[in-house]
Amino acid sequence: MILRIDKLAIELPMPAHPSPNSASAVQELLGGKFGEMSTLMNYTFQSFNFRGRDKLKPFYDLIANIAAEEYGHIELVSHTINMLLSGSTTRGNDPSATPLESATDVRNHYHYIASGQTALPVDSMGNPWNGTYVFSSGNLKLDLLHNFFLECGARANKIRVYEMVDDPVAREMVGYLLVRGGTHIVAYAKALEALTGVDVGKLLPIPDISNKRFPEAKKHEAKGLHQVMYRMSPDDYREMSAIWKGPHPEDGSELRVIDGPPEGGPVPVHPEEPQLTSPLGPDGIDTGILAEIGERLFGKEVGKKK
Amino acid sequence: MILRIDKLAIELPMPAHPSPNSASAVQELLGGKFGEMSTLMNYTFQSFNFRGRDKLKPFYDLIANIAAEEYGHIELVSHTINMLLSGSTTRGNDPSATPLESATDVRNHYHYIASGQTALPVDSMGNPWNGTYVFSSGNLKLDLLHNFFLECGARANKIRVYEMVDDPVAREMVGYLLVRGGTHIVAYAKALEALTGVDVGKLLPIPDISNKRFPEAKKHEAKGLHQVMYRMSPDDYREMSAIWKGPHPEDGSELRVIDGPPEGGPVPVHPEEPQLTSPLGPDGIDTGILAEIGERLFGKEVGKKK
Amino acid sequence: MILRIDKLAIELPMPAHPSPNSASAVQELLGGKFGEMSTLMNYTFQSFNFRGRDKLKPFYDLIANIAAEEYGHIELVSHTINMLLSGSTTRGNDPSATPLESATDVRNHYHYIASGQTALPVDSMGNPWNGTYVFSSGNLKLDLLHNFFLECGARANKIRVYEMVDDPVAREMVGYLLVRGGTHIVAYAKALEALTGVDVGKLLPIPDISNKRFPEAKKHEAKGLHQVMYRMSPDDYREMSAIWKGPHPEDGSELRVIDGPPEGGPVPVHPEEPQLTSPLGPDGIDTGILAEIGERLFGKEVGKKK
Amino acid sequence: MILRIDKLAIELPMPAHPSPNSASAVQELLGGKFGEMSTLMNYTFQSFNFRGRDKLKPFYDLIANIAAEEYGHIELVSHTINMLLSGSTTRGNDPSATPLESATDVRNHYHYIASGQTALPVDSMGNPWNGTYVFSSGNLKLDLLHNFFLECGARANKIRVYEMVDDPVAREMVGYLLVRGGTHIVAYAKALEALTGVDVGKLLPIPDISNKRFPEAKKHEAKGLHQVMYRMSPDDYREMSAIWKGPHPEDGSELRVIDGPPEGGPVPVHPEEPQLTSPLGPDGIDTGILAEIGERLFGKEVGKKK
Amino acid sequence: MILRIDKLAIELPMPAHPSPNSASAVQELLGGKFGEMSTLMNYTFQSFNFRGRDKLKPFYDLIANIAAEEYGHIELVSHTINMLLSGSTTRGNDPSATPLESATDVRNHYHYIASGQTALPVDSMGNPWNGTYVFSSGNLKLDLLHNFFLECGARANKIRVYEMVDDPVAREMVGYLLVRGGTHIVAYAKALEALTGVDVGKLLPIPDISNKRFPEAKKHEAKGLHQVMYRMSPDDYREMSAIWKGPHPEDGSELRVIDGPPEGGPVPVHPEEPQLTSPLGPDGIDTGILAEIGERLFGKEVGKKK
Amino acid sequence: MILRIDKLAIELPMPAHPSPNSASAVQELLGGKFGEMSTLMNYTFQSFNFRGRDKLKPFYDLIANIAAEEYGHIELVSHTINMLLSGSTTRGNDPSATPLESATDVRNHYHYIASGQTALPVDSMGNPWNGTYVFSSGNLKLDLLHNFFLECGARANKIRVYEMVDDPVAREMVGYLLVRGGTHIVAYAKALEALTGVDVGKLLPIPDISNKRFPEAKKHEAKGLHQVMYRMSPDDYREMSAIWKGPHPEDGSELRVIDGPPEGGPVPVHPEEPQLTSPLGPDGIDTGILAEIGERLFGKEVGKKK
Repeated sequence: MILRIDKLAIELPMPAHPSPNSASAVQELLGGKFGEMSTLMNYTFQSFNFRGRDKLKPFYDLIANIAAEEYGHIELVSHTINMLLSGSTTRGNDPSATPLESATDVRNHYHYIASGQTALPVDSMGNPWNGTYVFSSGNLKLDLLHNFFLECGARANKIRVYEMVDDPVAREMVGYLLVRGGTHIVAYAKALEALTGVDVGKLLPIPDISNKRFPEAKKHEAKGLHQVMYRMSPDDYREMSAIWKGPHPEDGSELRVIDGPPEGGPVPVHPEEPQLTSPLGPDGIDTGILAEIGERLFGKEVGKKK
Repeated sequence: MILRIDKLAIELPMPAHPSPNSASAVQELLGGKFGEMSTLMNYTFQSFNFRGRDKLKPFYDLIANIAAEEYGHIELVSHTINMLLSGSTTRGNDPSATPLESATDVRNHYHYIASGQTALPVDSMGNPWNGTYVFSSGNLKLDLLHNFFLECGARANKIRVYEMVDDPVAREMVGYLLVRGGTHIVAYAKALEALTGVDVGKLLPIPDISNKRFPEAKKHEAKGLHQVMYRMSPDDYREMSAIWKGPHPEDGSELRVIDGPPEGGPVPVHPEEPQLTSPLGPDGIDTGILAEIGERLFGKEVGKKK
Repeated sequence: MILRIDKLAIELPMPAHPSPNSASAVQELLGGKFGEMSTLMNYTFQSFNFRGRDKLKPFYDLIANIAAEEYGHIELVSHTINMLLSGSTTRGNDPSATPLESATDVRNHYHYIASGQTALPVDSMGNPWNGTYVFSSGNLKLDLLHNFFLECGARANKIRVYEMVDDPVAREMVGYLLVRGGTHIVAYAKALEALTGVDVGKLLPIPDISNKRFPEAKKHEAKGLHQVMYRMSPDDYREMSAIWKGPHPEDGSELRVIDGPPEGGPVPVHPEEPQLTSPLGPDGIDTGILAEIGERLFGKEVGKKK
Repeated sequence: MILRIDKLAIELPMPAHPSPNSASAVQELLGGKFGEMSTLMNYTFQSFNFRGRDKLKPFYDLIANIAAEEYGHIELVSHTINMLLSGSTTRGNDPSATPLESATDVRNHYHYIASGQTALPVDSMGNPWNGTYVFSSGNLKLDLLHNFFLECGARANKIRVYEMVDDPVAREMVGYLLVRGGTHIVAYAKALEALTGVDVGKLLPIPDISNKRFPEAKKHEAKGLHQVMYRMSPDDYREMSAIWKGPHPEDGSELRVIDGPPEGGPVPVHPEEPQLTSPLGPDGIDTGILAEIGERLFGKEVGKKK
Repeated sequence: MILRIDKLAIELPMPAHPSPNSASAVQELLGGKFGEMSTLMNYTFQSFNFRGRDKLKPFYDLIANIAAEEYGHIELVSHTINMLLSGSTTRGNDPSATPLESATDVRNHYHYIASGQTALPVDSMGNPWNGTYVFSSGNLKLDLLHNFFLECGARANKIRVYEMVDDPVAREMVGYLLVRGGTHIVAYAKALEALTGVDVGKLLPIPDISNKRFPEAKKHEAKGLHQVMYRMSPDDYREMSAIWKGPHPEDGSELRVIDGPPEGGPVPVHPEEPQLTSPLGPDGIDTGILAEIGERLFGKEVGKKK
Repeated sequence: MILRIDKLAIELPMPAHPSPNSASAVQELLGGKFGEMSTLMNYTFQSFNFRGRDKLKPFYDLIANIAAEEYGHIELVSHTINMLLSGSTTRGNDPSATPLESATDVRNHYHYIASGQTALPVDSMGNPWNGTYVFSSGNLKLDLLHNFFLECGARANKIRVYEMVDDPVAREMVGYLLVRGGTHIVAYAKALEALTGVDVGKLLPIPDISNKRFPEAKKHEAKGLHQVMYRMSPDDYREMSAIWKGPHPEDGSELRVIDGPPEGGPVPVHPEEPQLTSPLGPDGIDTGILAEIGERLFGKEVGKKK
């Protein structure tokens, strides 16, 4: 089971301006083969499917705990996409004014037809995330090798989206995920080393470009964020510290577990897009529906018309 | 963000015997269009994508909170599948003894080739769950109507899998999910009513067969589980109680919110399947790798050879 | 536009007994790459997309008219599947009696979970029909060559399903479709000949096995059904007779157009399957819902409880 | 079976100018999850799969009849796409002049490579329509709820495409479909009410924006088109009038059945695009193939070279 | 088995300039339903699956040999795509300079995120090539008819991509493939004629536009390339000359087999794109990794930093 | 370009008996995510897409050469499937005798409807191989890591299919591929070591079960087959020997390159299945078509009726 916290892993800055095609590129980090849906679901299923947990608890705890952190990453990418899309069409209540005209030429029409200018579990070409992206062989060495590769592939994707999109909200998000994904790479390298004795961490970085070259990642590493594994649980998964220990393979600094989630930042309030009837259409708003709803909910008047 | 708890929503009983084709049927409740991956991801994305949260917080809180409960449901279905598959082939270390022979004729080969006799995000025919199953239009009324329909469709699927599989572990799981899914149906009916004033709950049950006819569901309803919405968060999503209130549409009992998750049951330890090298193969075990691993992890000998 | 007639192209005999796996095989003729969904949608889209109709009206009329006949073929295959599935599980209202137990081992679980023991637009492996199966290049010669090939491929599929399934309802359906599909092969051969002067019909039969070897097809050919193109329209598509004329390429008999659809047979009444709550569940039936519905519909009591 | 009529449901105006990316957006209304292929095929399969038709004939008749009308809708959307694409590249017979150059940057390359600047069963991102979009559970209440939701989702899609595209041909088409789809929403609401007694129609409009705000829809409603259900059959489906009756839930006007299809408008003649060899290439035309074809077809010279 | 030769079928000229969207269009010829992956895999599987080879060896030899030539075609298309993409973003090692900015608006994001500005087995819309595009019925007449159609469809695709893209590298490639694909059309026509006696070649060209109208194809035909079937094997497939003989159906020139592959041209060296860390990232290059690698490989210093 | 040799990598023994469901399982090794289509296409595309080949020639040569060997592996798996399927239904020319009856209950209907009891590019569940299985990032370190993982995943799949199927033809094939795939694992480990200095080979075997435990693999290793890289080219790819050298990581024996392909074995002649009209139907055979064909091909009578 999970408990959910109404905060993001970090505070996201406001975007410089709406950028539909940037949002489309960022979708690869959400619903692509190497997006956060994939890391989330790979580790989640591997934790459900772990055989012999009693004998190999530290490995189970590590995988289960990283899975929990990944939920916060699909959240972070989704909100970034939403922020890049907010305000990207003309707000208003008159459909005949063609308020979505500018969306005709954008790369991802689903953002304007299927969703209300918000994220979907699809990749940068609009192809849906799917379950063939989950690998869960049951052999621990093979699953760990997969995870190590998956995180490196995910890192390559993040780097390229970073190089494509310079909006502050996207870069802040990618910078943070480069660092956190980096800890997952190290974690799976350490786990492979614990299992086999081979120092796989010496292969890093993969691709061969350091996080230090990304200002938005470098600032977090300067504070030691790359040394930290958050324990994303009230009481469980403590044995992962048997794996997450010793020197960081890239800079030799000491790895450590922090009990509990990152401090985090507020979940952004995404503004209404009335031309998309999101969250309400004009017939709702014009008839004072918010007041009526408020009465039903609280027995008194709440909400204000936009 | 989420915190993860190493418990299942309920304790699962041991299966009567391994049942590969039953496991295959149960996959529909995990990775099917109306499976728990779908309910989880629909509400998760709708919560990320909510516009105008400041004005409609109770709706946001309700959707976000139900999303959190759904995570526990993919977990429960996955463990049920794993338990139905454990022991379904011949345990041993000699591949030339054809230990997987009985798997040749089963319905889902992925369980024996892609996974180590464990769950995958696919449906009863082996087709992968995919992102086209997520609906997130941004219009609140439409999204709530969708969710109401989705839960009813999911209920129909659960009923039919229940009628197909009589193993105790499957029935216990389905019985529980019929009740919990039932609360989600009511929740979206109440939310639609809060938004529109229309008493959609009068349509229930859909399909028109009562949970009372399922002994494993009836026992939970007898204890009032159908009246409860768990608040799956340390501190957030409190305003859902503005919606989750009043009489249950089917029996008139009073709805109530419980702060925190269900008490839950233990996560089953899935036994090793050495013929699938899960979690380790004979070359690992025969060379005393568990002892070596233990030393690397804890500086002392741990683990025992099977 | 279309007008719909509540009759099937032929009367379907009762099946010898329920045959879930036969139904699964027959699905290939409905939702497979070479199934009736494909022939229907290929010709339908080609008729919408026809350029230069004013100069090539007979070709347009032929394609548009065959498209119309194909609708009757998806209907015929679907009802055959439904008849093979009716009664394939235990009828009753008690879910805990595991009424669908026998369905656990069948090839297509969707028939028992997604549908109520009825047809779906999927193929024999449960993969969905999809739009990549539609070819509509706009070049008339190429489109006609495609259609000629498609019909031959469809014929091969029908022959093989015939050889797999000996239930009378399946054989009656396939026998009829072999003859009707045969006329479509000839039609596209004639159209290619009209366009190019090349006698493509000399290639027939493809595959090289005559319809005469199939008793259920032979009986229709004995009555000349292979010489007939039905004009499936009140007033239109008359110019196809400029193409559908002259000798049949296989037996030299004279081709002719019949104005209007085949006489047809009754649409079967598929019996209720209460264990699938189809069409109603016990809570509906037990509360006398049919009587209530009757009152709402007709102001008097109608319907009887099962 | 069906009879086909060579007319569209309405007359489509000429587009203002070719608009490849608008055509790409309109594809969502054809091959998207909520496009007309989906409404057509959902109701078609539900009508084939109806169990207990003898007891619930009005419901069967309603679903079967709406299915028939939907055929006219895939036709209407397809022709709109074709009209938006006609003339969008440079007409001519010299391939080395790069006549399709402008198509390099458009959103949907299939329109220029797979088809001859015409419609395909794909959505706005080029993903194919597929059979997983069809829901046919066999439980009448659930199927009706699905259809009610599907139509509301389809309505949201139409509204958004309307807001994206202001070409007269697209708006005329969408305006008409908003009204006709609106009648289907009402029909399924009425059917649910007949089945359960619950006045689901009070939820309308969904999304909460009235058809009256769309001039091209408003003009049809002013003439009462939203009160009409066409009986799309020579003789059948008469019992749907037991459901389609009483007041319209949005304006209280009286619902009524019209026997027969709409008067309709002409099927547009789509001009030749010789650079796409559609319908013929220069080698055909230059060798006088039209005259030859004419002789083969009619025994006299027909057709003229473009 | 195969032997691989490190040469392309022809020498490819340098592109005029990088053209991301042209590369996107050319992908249809690689991973589209009618792309070279399809021709390669159709004939490859048909050759594996040939039944009764002892009695029909010339047909087997022909299909197997054409399959071998097709490998050279996926190679040629892939290198063309790579050349159109090289240099399409800003080279350099500083990710924060947004070197991929220009890629945000291109049609195919996979070229910049999944690959390093290189080809992938996807089509012009980014949809993956898949195995449903392979037809292998086992009936020789039907398989040959399929192949004849497939090549004609592939020809239509090539023509349209030619008309879309005027870059010299694309046109040289398409011109060559029009001629070579043209020989495959003739080969399957001849094979059908050998099997049935019907002169299918009289249907050509399909679509009805001659290769002579394409300067880059015409120049090869002027040298007789359209008369040649290369025997792509050291010693095998000699009996195809029993089919590949007689007059060419379009110009009557004599067909002939050449023993061995075309002379071919060099495989282009694709330049490094350091901003994509392809093939190495700055951390590799800056630390002199090429010299280190050289020592490991050859025991002496090799390579130079870019 | 390639040259094709009409031999298999090894001689395949006759199967013990037809085994449709075993053939279905073996399909995973052909068209599965980790099947031979994947290894073939991954390395093929990586070789096309290699940037900076001039500086890193040994790596290019290694990848390109392994790609060439993989072609022989899809061939070997396909023929194994064909041999397991030959004779699995009743041979004969009378369709009404239901010759395919036994196929109704098999796992893969495509083998009997789409193909003539032969292989298709699909996996063990009938899902098609697709291009999303190809990874080609352009970063050499990441691509090599991917390939190392892919081969380990493929090895796990082979082991499990071996354990499922004990037919001699399947075991001989899998035994051989375990050894040859094993050399590819070592090759990518060596390449990673050449690039980074890290001895990745110490991780082997993955999964942790030695090839020595598989009698059909052990016999090849006893002859040193695991030490050999075949140079699959008349003249090229020689620099791979700079990587493929030194001790084997599992047994320390010396690696060596053999110039040219394995000696190989004969391509099996798959018997005719007349009930599938493969390769000819009775109308062909009964009319003496083989004699006619022979005359067309060779000017004299050839072939004999079965």
